[in-house]
Amino acid sequence: MYKLNAIDGGVCAATGFFADGIHIGLKKEGAYDLAFIYSSSLCSVASVFTTNKMTAAPIRHFQTRGDFEGNFVLINAKNANAMTGRAGIDDIDEVLSAVQAKFPQVQNPVMSSTGVIGVRLPKTKIIEGALTFDLSKREGIKASEAIMTTDTFAKRIAYEVVLEDGQSFRIGAMAKGAGMINPAMATMLCFITTDANVDKETMQGILDECVHTTFNAASVDGDTSTNDTVLVMANKQSGAFHKEAFKEALESIMLFLAKEMVRDGEGATKLVTYKVTGAINDKEAEIAAKALSNSLLVKTALFGQDPNWGRIASTIGASGIMCDEAFLSIWFDDVCVYKKGELLFDEKLEPFAAAVMQKSAFTIHCDIGFQDGEFTAYGCDLGHEYVKINADYRT
Amino acid sequence: MYKLNAIDGGVCAATGFFADGIHIGLKKEGAYDLAFIYSSSLCSVASVFTTNKMTAAPIRHFQTRGDFEGNFVLINAKNANAMTGRAGIDDIDEVLSAVQAKFPQVQNPVMSSTGVIGVRLPKTKIIEGALTFDLSKREGIKASEAIMTTDTFAKRIAYEVVLEDGQSFRIGAMAKGAGMINPAMATMLCFITTDANVDKETMQGILDECVHTTFNAASVDGDTSTNDTVLVMANKQSGAFHKEAFKEALESIMLFLAKEMVRDGEGATKLVTYKVTGAINDKEAEIAAKALSNSLLVKTALFGQDPNWGRIASTIGASGIMCDEAFLSIWFDDVCVYKKGELLFDEKLEPFAAAVMQKSAFTIHCDIGFQDGEFTAYGCDLGHEYVKINADYRT
Repeated sequence: MYKLNAIDGGVCAATGFFADGIHIGLKKEGAYDLAFIYSSSLCSVASVFTTNKMTAAPIRHFQTRGDFEGNFVLINAKNANAMTGRAGIDDIDEVLSAVQAKFPQVQNPVMSSTGVIGVRLPKTKIIEGALTFDLSKREGIKASEAIMTTDTFAKRIAYEVVLEDGQSFRIGAMAKGAGMINPAMATMLCFITTDANVDKETMQGILDECVHTTFNAASVDGDTSTNDTVLVMANKQSGAFHKEAFKEALESIMLFLAKEMVRDGEGATKLVTYKVTGAINDKEAEIAAKALSNSLLVKTALFGQDPNWGRIASTIGASGIMCDEAFLSIWFDDVCVYKKGELLFDEKLEPFAAAVMQKSAFTIHCDIGFQDGEFTAYGCDLGHEYVKINADYRT
Repeated sequence: MYKLNAIDGGVCAATGFFADGIHIGLKKEGAYDLAFIYSSSLCSVASVFTTNKMTAAPIRHFQTRGDFEGNFVLINAKNANAMTGRAGIDDIDEVLSAVQAKFPQVQNPVMSSTGVIGVRLPKTKIIEGALTFDLSKREGIKASEAIMTTDTFAKRIAYEVVLEDGQSFRIGAMAKGAGMINPAMATMLCFITTDANVDKETMQGILDECVHTTFNAASVDGDTSTNDTVLVMANKQSGAFHKEAFKEALESIMLFLAKEMVRDGEGATKLVTYKVTGAINDKEAEIAAKALSNSLLVKTALFGQDPNWGRIASTIGASGIMCDEAFLSIWFDDVCVYKKGELLFDEKLEPFAAAVMQKSAFTIHCDIGFQDGEFTAYGCDLGHEYVKINADYRT
């Protein structure tokens, strides 16, 4: 048996990890806009990147490294370094070379960026800023604020995992989301640090599994930004590891951050869990759940707090999965509004359904009524604030 | 050679066709809400329906008829008769039987509905209204108004096709769109009437071809409403036919109506043509063009009149087609903002690109730079009005 304890510190919670966020003039009014994560010993690195074909320069740069151990990540906001071609990669090399010249303890550094696409990296500002870093800082909070773009709050979490034999290890994380994540292609970045004694291959396998039910469940139809990145760095300094415990902690951390991103989606006022059961297989349940969380008509009905179950049914029908109105059932939390062809929704039921819609978080459960396939996705509503933010994003 | 002349009359333009729109109390303030189309002789009928699995009752009813000739379509607004099961189909039978009892000249009537999902048809009102129809009316305008839901203007068009030998035939049409069509699943209905001497099989083949480049190009990722319907009725009364001329006229009519629907999309202020060329094949060009016209980030940037070409590039990258930033080029009308890896967009170019974005109609052209695949899709922006309309749709 093992225990998970929530602890403070974000990406600095695990032994041997350091981080800070500073202001170098990319954001306005002194807001932090450049961050680093540093480990005092080399780390195994597991990663998941965007499937977007217009992969940003930082990801292309990372991927040229092959299988490597490193101990440093530099992260900037306000510029995605995407669509910048070979020059974008050269810019990263120049920045990271300058960092290594100043800090000889930095080995195999990588970079991550978020912001506007199609503009060259402001590398002079970044280099000048990076040279002022103090690698002994444990400012996980500042680092999590530096990577924010249109996020309204910083997102971080950490767990201590205590094993039966008294040994323990820690996992900490920070993330930025905003945008409606998917399909809106706002960049999602997540950095996870751990002192668990885990090898790269094991860690990559666990990460891949956890991404499917967390970040990918909150980011719908496969659309992703040019920069989406999840990095896990393990420096092994605790000497402890337990595979199931590590997986449970990592999945909890990623699910928490995924939900926080959805809750903080641009203009979002609601976090909605779309639980689809009874599909002919898990894949079809996933297609339906993601179609629901991506539907403009569903999202706007949520914003209007309108228990418009017909849009739910229509979206499932349009998703292409095997379904039939005679087998479908729909619930808003525990209020059943449609049951296997029976029109339950009337004036009596409406206030109960409407009351659920007024909550800031609730579940829409659709049972397809066929087999055992199931999937849970997470989405938010779409309101005026989303339009406002995205109509004016560059300005 | 042949000539197409635009003429008045909508669905009553072709010889032998009659139509009217009346008010039966489904809409407020005396607005027309029930319509018919009647032909004085039997028609061949070609059709294209939604791919939504939750097919509405009128479509299921139509599909039980098999291969038939008919001369009457009844259309109601405000109620989709969808998710209503067997009872919904029985309601249609009851309504149409009453119509036939009153009007013995009506043969094999069918029905079409648009409106709220999951509520039984108000059949008493509909029957009472239908019994007051005057089948000698040629009120194509009133009929086109009766089928509107959130449309802000009625959509109709007609052509006279004059052949080289002096013979001629006519094609008229009316449609309703609104919603963002696709992926928003607002119902799209289109009724086309012709006195051309065309057999059903030929007409169905031409219709299928034309739908691909018109309504399906304006309705993006395969999402469709429970009720989407395109019906073509040919009563052959002109005795004339010419396949190429018929196809050209039908395609012009459908493209005009498709663009009118997009232009009248809920809250839309712009009609944007997405021309994708240079893809490895037409299918990939279609995927990219539809991804652009469906992207929330692109739509909101259009609303904000922001020449944010990075979102265009990112959306193409996320669409999954073969592409590479080093081969891609992007134009706003004739203003090239990105050319095969070259960042052309700067302070000098911005006013020219911004000027294009301020137009009410313009073209975004993306050349993938690989092969000859091309497709053109049509989309609109997404603004506050869309959110407002869809947050409050049922109320």
